[in-house]
Amino acid sequence: MSGKQKHNANPMWGGRFESGPDALMREINASIHVDYALYGEDIAGSIAHARMLEASRIITQQEAADIVRGLEQIRGEIDAGQFTVSEDLEDIHMHIEARLKEIIGDAAGRLHTARSRNDQVATDLRLYVRRACDETDRLLQALQAALLKQAGAHTHTIMPGFTHLQSAQPVTFGHHLLAYAEMFWRDRDRFHETRRRANECPLGAAALAGTSFPIDRHMSAKALGFDHPMRNSLDAVASRDFAVDFLAASTTTSLHLSRLAEEMILWSTPQFSFVRLPEGFTSGSSIMPQKRNPDAAELVRGKSGRILGNLVSLCMVLKGLPLAYNKDLQEDKEPVFDSHYQLELCLRAMTGMADGMQADKERMEQAAGWGHATATDLADWLVRECNLPFRDAHHVTGRIVKLADELGVTLEHLHIGELQRIDGRITPEVLSCLSVAQSVKSRTSYGGTSPENVRNAIMEAKERYGIV
Amino acid sequence: MSGKQKHNANPMWGGRFESGPDALMREINASIHVDYALYGEDIAGSIAHARMLEASRIITQQEAADIVRGLEQIRGEIDAGQFTVSEDLEDIHMHIEARLKEIIGDAAGRLHTARSRNDQVATDLRLYVRRACDETDRLLQALQAALLKQAGAHTHTIMPGFTHLQSAQPVTFGHHLLAYAEMFWRDRDRFHETRRRANECPLGAAALAGTSFPIDRHMSAKALGFDHPMRNSLDAVASRDFAVDFLAASTTTSLHLSRLAEEMILWSTPQFSFVRLPEGFTSGSSIMPQKRNPDAAELVRGKSGRILGNLVSLCMVLKGLPLAYNKDLQEDKEPVFDSHYQLELCLRAMTGMADGMQADKERMEQAAGWGHATATDLADWLVRECNLPFRDAHHVTGRIVKLADELGVTLEHLHIGELQRIDGRITPEVLSCLSVAQSVKSRTSYGGTSPENVRNAIMEAKERYGIV
Amino acid sequence: MSGKQKHNANPMWGGRFESGPDALMREINASIHVDYALYGEDIAGSIAHARMLEASRIITQQEAADIVRGLEQIRGEIDAGQFTVSEDLEDIHMHIEARLKEIIGDAAGRLHTARSRNDQVATDLRLYVRRACDETDRLLQALQAALLKQAGAHTHTIMPGFTHLQSAQPVTFGHHLLAYAEMFWRDRDRFHETRRRANECPLGAAALAGTSFPIDRHMSAKALGFDHPMRNSLDAVASRDFAVDFLAASTTTSLHLSRLAEEMILWSTPQFSFVRLPEGFTSGSSIMPQKRNPDAAELVRGKSGRILGNLVSLCMVLKGLPLAYNKDLQEDKEPVFDSHYQLELCLRAMTGMADGMQADKERMEQAAGWGHATATDLADWLVRECNLPFRDAHHVTGRIVKLADELGVTLEHLHIGELQRIDGRITPEVLSCLSVAQSVKSRTSYGGTSPENVRNAIMEAKERYGIV
Amino acid sequence: MSGKQKHNANPMWGGRFESGPDALMREINASIHVDYALYGEDIAGSIAHARMLEASRIITQQEAADIVRGLEQIRGEIDAGQFTVSEDLEDIHMHIEARLKEIIGDAAGRLHTARSRNDQVATDLRLYVRRACDETDRLLQALQAALLKQAGAHTHTIMPGFTHLQSAQPVTFGHHLLAYAEMFWRDRDRFHETRRRANECPLGAAALAGTSFPIDRHMSAKALGFDHPMRNSLDAVASRDFAVDFLAASTTTSLHLSRLAEEMILWSTPQFSFVRLPEGFTSGSSIMPQKRNPDAAELVRGKSGRILGNLVSLCMVLKGLPLAYNKDLQEDKEPVFDSHYQLELCLRAMTGMADGMQADKERMEQAAGWGHATATDLADWLVRECNLPFRDAHHVTGRIVKLADELGVTLEHLHIGELQRIDGRITPEVLSCLSVAQSVKSRTSYGGTSPENVRNAIMEAKERYGIV
Repeated sequence: MSGKQKHNANPMWGGRFESGPDALMREINASIHVDYALYGEDIAGSIAHARMLEASRIITQQEAADIVRGLEQIRGEIDAGQFTVSEDLEDIHMHIEARLKEIIGDAAGRLHTARSRNDQVATDLRLYVRRACDETDRLLQALQAALLKQAGAHTHTIMPGFTHLQSAQPVTFGHHLLAYAEMFWRDRDRFHETRRRANECPLGAAALAGTSFPIDRHMSAKALGFDHPMRNSLDAVASRDFAVDFLAASTTTSLHLSRLAEEMILWSTPQFSFVRLPEGFTSGSSIMPQKRNPDAAELVRGKSGRILGNLVSLCMVLKGLPLAYNKDLQEDKEPVFDSHYQLELCLRAMTGMADGMQADKERMEQAAGWGHATATDLADWLVRECNLPFRDAHHVTGRIVKLADELGVTLEHLHIGELQRIDGRITPEVLSCLSVAQSVKSRTSYGGTSPENVRNAIMEAKERYGIV
Repeated sequence: MSGKQKHNANPMWGGRFESGPDALMREINASIHVDYALYGEDIAGSIAHARMLEASRIITQQEAADIVRGLEQIRGEIDAGQFTVSEDLEDIHMHIEARLKEIIGDAAGRLHTARSRNDQVATDLRLYVRRACDETDRLLQALQAALLKQAGAHTHTIMPGFTHLQSAQPVTFGHHLLAYAEMFWRDRDRFHETRRRANECPLGAAALAGTSFPIDRHMSAKALGFDHPMRNSLDAVASRDFAVDFLAASTTTSLHLSRLAEEMILWSTPQFSFVRLPEGFTSGSSIMPQKRNPDAAELVRGKSGRILGNLVSLCMVLKGLPLAYNKDLQEDKEPVFDSHYQLELCLRAMTGMADGMQADKERMEQAAGWGHATATDLADWLVRECNLPFRDAHHVTGRIVKLADELGVTLEHLHIGELQRIDGRITPEVLSCLSVAQSVKSRTSYGGTSPENVRNAIMEAKERYGIV
Repeated sequence: MSGKQKHNANPMWGGRFESGPDALMREINASIHVDYALYGEDIAGSIAHARMLEASRIITQQEAADIVRGLEQIRGEIDAGQFTVSEDLEDIHMHIEARLKEIIGDAAGRLHTARSRNDQVATDLRLYVRRACDETDRLLQALQAALLKQAGAHTHTIMPGFTHLQSAQPVTFGHHLLAYAEMFWRDRDRFHETRRRANECPLGAAALAGTSFPIDRHMSAKALGFDHPMRNSLDAVASRDFAVDFLAASTTTSLHLSRLAEEMILWSTPQFSFVRLPEGFTSGSSIMPQKRNPDAAELVRGKSGRILGNLVSLCMVLKGLPLAYNKDLQEDKEPVFDSHYQLELCLRAMTGMADGMQADKERMEQAAGWGHATATDLADWLVRECNLPFRDAHHVTGRIVKLADELGVTLEHLHIGELQRIDGRITPEVLSCLSVAQSVKSRTSYGGTSPENVRNAIMEAKERYGIV
Repeated sequence: MSGKQKHNANPMWGGRFESGPDALMREINASIHVDYALYGEDIAGSIAHARMLEASRIITQQEAADIVRGLEQIRGEIDAGQFTVSEDLEDIHMHIEARLKEIIGDAAGRLHTARSRNDQVATDLRLYVRRACDETDRLLQALQAALLKQAGAHTHTIMPGFTHLQSAQPVTFGHHLLAYAEMFWRDRDRFHETRRRANECPLGAAALAGTSFPIDRHMSAKALGFDHPMRNSLDAVASRDFAVDFLAASTTTSLHLSRLAEEMILWSTPQFSFVRLPEGFTSGSSIMPQKRNPDAAELVRGKSGRILGNLVSLCMVLKGLPLAYNKDLQEDKEPVFDSHYQLELCLRAMTGMADGMQADKERMEQAAGWGHATATDLADWLVRECNLPFRDAHHVTGRIVKLADELGVTLEHLHIGELQRIDGRITPEVLSCLSVAQSVKSRTSYGGTSPENVRNAIMEAKERYGIV
């Protein structure tokens, strides 16, 4: 159990420290409740190390076999929830070491030849981050799939495109959702890069200086799936920039999620009523049955704070630390574990919401027409068809909008005669560009919002994102 | 157990979500593992509310008596660790409510008259912060006491005063320690202010708008020790600046701790060897028996990152939130609980180290003499006694220092004749100001480092700090 | 001009460093473009120091008179924009010192008796922070006045009270605005406390250890309006927690501003249309005359990021710094100046917007009725008047709401007969609690939203806030 | 001039706002003092756009020629410092537009066909970030070159390798410096990735929805050196994750710099005296000629705070922003510009210090021997040569270290007879592993600290880093 949890589980912890410095030191020093999560990585790393020691003839075949057998037994015990955590052993490494000795006896000690806690723990955390990157990538892909599915259903659904949260120009709902799919595409790239950069092996750096044992670091690196051993032993045990990368990628992703969550919350208000979020991700009220609070979206939005906080936390820890290992580095794990866990929750919740939300096409299209959102189309038409300079086109458009306001109609409901009275160069063809549907259809420039574009973009994206 | 802990305790949690949105929603929505820590506050708040409802004749005497009895029974059960946490109830409030119904039946429902979860949870967190401020204040006072004790033992111990981590002028070790005691004095003031500002009562704001029941908010506020009820019901349920205050005060304190920790780490290096930290707060090596790693000091230094991270986290959560309650606010508790817990650990560890560290007076005094640290005293003497302008005094001093370097001696070992050859106005009296002991003794300006000053400062501080 | 500005003004700065380390060192070391803003504080501090040296007979009356005259001349020159900044003098202190020597000759050197740059710069920044607190307090008060003015005009204007950005219960617009006035009240308290804690005088701490000159620190402290001299010379030159306090108070204020800004942006959307922001604080479009982008509100919201960034920046600088002065501390000023400046901009802009916004009462009241926002009132009535247990009251209310939905009417348009068919205990009196106006009127608990309450709250607040 | 600078240059700005909302709005809204730095990017973008419009037959050849000529003239004017900034034009784009109209008349208006400020400013900032990545990469490479040069000179220089800032095992100074070169290698990779991900073109996204003009976005993207046009128009104008990437890469780099700076500061203390920093990067004292304050190193350490602050700032700005453009995004530029500028300063200063620092080999080697730093070598020898289990080897080593302490000698000065009395299995060969030189020499595992390794690592690194 982590420090946090301990605190929570036992609010009377005030009395804990009575027993003097030893108890207090154990309390502040212990990391078992945090690094317990690394047991899989730790055992994998130890097995690779043992096999390498064997191949390098530093330990015997028998010793290696005993060690591997013992470690696999321990893994089974932990997997099965049959492993006992002791207050007296400060971390997961010591727990496994102690248990290994119980199982195989003194040979357990051989495992620590040419290795130290410093390179061991750095290896474990890199393995964890690598796995976390892969898991996050899969979750991001699932979210993209949900967005593409909705986008596919809404290539022709028209909504207001906002700037400054004011209606600016109509866009398609599909196009809007694809914008997020693209953000998450870059986020996936961030996790790929984080994984690639993290994927080098500290094992064999020993305490800090390397070792005089004839070890084969390339072998153990390969066995663990690393690209190569780290090239400098001090760097191997002292650096945590790979963890900062993970936290930074998580932060960027959570920012994108917070933007989408904000929109879902807005869209769900009675004022907007653009979408209805799936019941499973909202909370109701026994008294107001029509009410749906977008709890999950709010939590996704809020958790971006925590994920940024974790990044700040580790950066502050690293500031000004001299080489090589310092105990401050023990504070590297919780931010990583927490951001990983929280981001997983957020991605799954967002995928559920994106997948299940129901758009109210009618409300959206109606809102798209508010505020003369096709005025730009009119001005563009004047430039394009009548060859008016931009400024003049704007001026004419302004007068037409004003007229529409006075008449209390939207642009597309003006008569051609009324338009021509403002500027004689206007022809009936203009009418075709004044409806929101026509506006959207005309935005065919690469990356533009036209339904045709959106359909193509979905097809291209599916392939690029690896979605079948 | 917190989200974090859950994650840690069961690393295979990937499978958890298989059961669909409901399970996921429960996972992201649940706060019981965090807000369990608030049970004491929650029960106290409910008792005060029930008594007020009774006095206002909104519920009967019997109902109130049943409610209070039931709540006290629940408190006893939780205190004794006999309370069952259920996956199906999302927070501590629902747990207590459900249990109360089991114990006293339908009257339990009366407790929720003229109250909502929104004002209830805001009240609980304010009560928690108030208690946390008091606890932190006491811990800061204990640390001050340890610093004063050491300062008292070292009013005459001379060490180098550093600027830019270069020896600048000699100071006393006692004076150096008092600088930290003063910082912690201001930190205590921060917690006092945080407490004062937090100490107003949201109870009775109901969901957001107040209530039409004839409640007496002053009565329940008073019963809970608040200064008064909050004046605006929307503000009462939507604001968390009191929690930001707590996190900011914790951050400032942790920065001061990080500075002292850094110095302890430096002082413990073989290169400095100014102090020896108590064994209980260091870790050794079976192989290098003379080695003492200052683990606790490093952790104190590192944890400043986490505490700043918590502050950033909550600020980000609050940014741009419309009134009144939003679910994002559920992310307010963990930063507060964690900073409180971590700061407690740090303060206790630092108190132990400050109390038990042993200064090596000889090493310190020897180092104080390096680098002609009394050159400023010499220049000041020339200004004061020979009425030289400052710039001239500096020039003469520079020449004398250069001579000492050439001769390979410290300033105080120059002969008066050598000094007078550089400037004839120098008299033998100058010699008295060239030793580090004399330098320190002469700094008698208010707040200066002289032993006499330090002794007086300790006496004054003891009284101000409330240390007997 | 600051590094930032230099960079901006001359984007070809890449070539700047060609001239070798000296030019580079000057570039990284210089602070004149930042600390120029401190000239007023620096001169005031020097005058107080000179007068004290005179009174303590460390310099002569004539020297003091010359120094003071020279400094006042320099202040005049800078005030008038007639002061030349030189690349060769790294900070404002050296500029003033050099100019003073030009004006009064060698006596200028006497000013530096019993003082160093370290205590001088700490004094200047404290004076700045004190002034900034006072200015910010006045701006916050002006914003409160604008909010109270609007609140006074809208004691009876009904709007939806939101939770989760869903309509929850009707509130008055005046009540909503008062919630912010209360937040800013606490922010003012934060600046008062920051000022109080900062208001002690480092002057006379000298480089770090105090001085052997017989100075009178109480005199110079008093002359500068400080409460007392700082009690420990090391603390005086090494601590910057007062600057962290200022940045933290600025952050909390900016968070409150970001919330109000967010609401103004929401309220200005075509979907909400609750308020119309004053033209002077929005930007239009030549092509869409009806469009009003809430630029100023968006900038206020966004600048909360920068203000939090400044806080993080200084915290990171301070982490792990050994005593006493370190050059890192030069990075203390820009965050303070920038947060002060940006917060001033934000407060003035928000005051302008709060003062000039026009509420659309009709839209607000109409929206307040959506979503059966008085369902809680109905349930409360059933509890209060019919003595139904809470759960039963909720159940009955749910059925009534469902009926209203089926009939397509709001609660207040149901007939008494329809209500009684659902529950026979309902009497015609219930109808009085189903309108939003009645709902709001009934919330008379202390701090509740009833118009009467709001009127009283405004009167009480005016007095407390010092608004005439 | 930026807001910051304005503030600094004119401390009497309090009066600025007297003239009412218009002046205030201009003040908060204007970005010209910040985005002036983008003029080169803005003109390049406009030229590419004009050429594309011409090729797409949207404007005439003559119009395009006029526009390009006019823009190039403006670039010349700004380059030459002959461009007038006006208070009335809020940003660099409007300045250039207005000047273009003065030069070429109405054709200037044609430039804005099929483009808006939103895609224009996003394009400019991407071009800036791309250039900043390239510049930073070159500076990082120069720093690596300085580190390799020093490492090459110190392949055999022995120093203590620290863990917990306690001597742990001897390492070579060259090896230590290479650790940093590796960190900066990964930092270069971060800037490469940032550049790659940023290098897609928003131009042609128009306001948010694309355009109905038949533009060729691939052509303008290619002309500006972008890899391809952005695939979604909403994403193109609303996303700033590329700027977050830049700030995150800057933060990681600055953390690595802060660690090296910390070590330089430590190494320069009289207590360590491992290196002497070049005079050009330190400041002296007229009075203490031997003193050298490591100012530049301290500033490099401190500026990591500011660079992290900039990252936090932009993350906060982005949190919860709905699509597409919002004015908050105007706050994206200053953090980027400032981090770029500050990091450039830091990298240049660090390169100067790394290049010019002089190591005191004797002091380093002497310190390396303190604390029985070869005890691990002894234990390893016992494991390797005598086949002792690890625990036994540790036990024996502990007894030997204790003996050395009692005799007051270092391990290598013990006699073989003394060693054999403790354990009979020890042979004279052991003596060869007890000196620090031998210890270092024996660490030949890949990535270990042996001089041979370091020499090879330098050769490999030079090629990888592209250093000739």
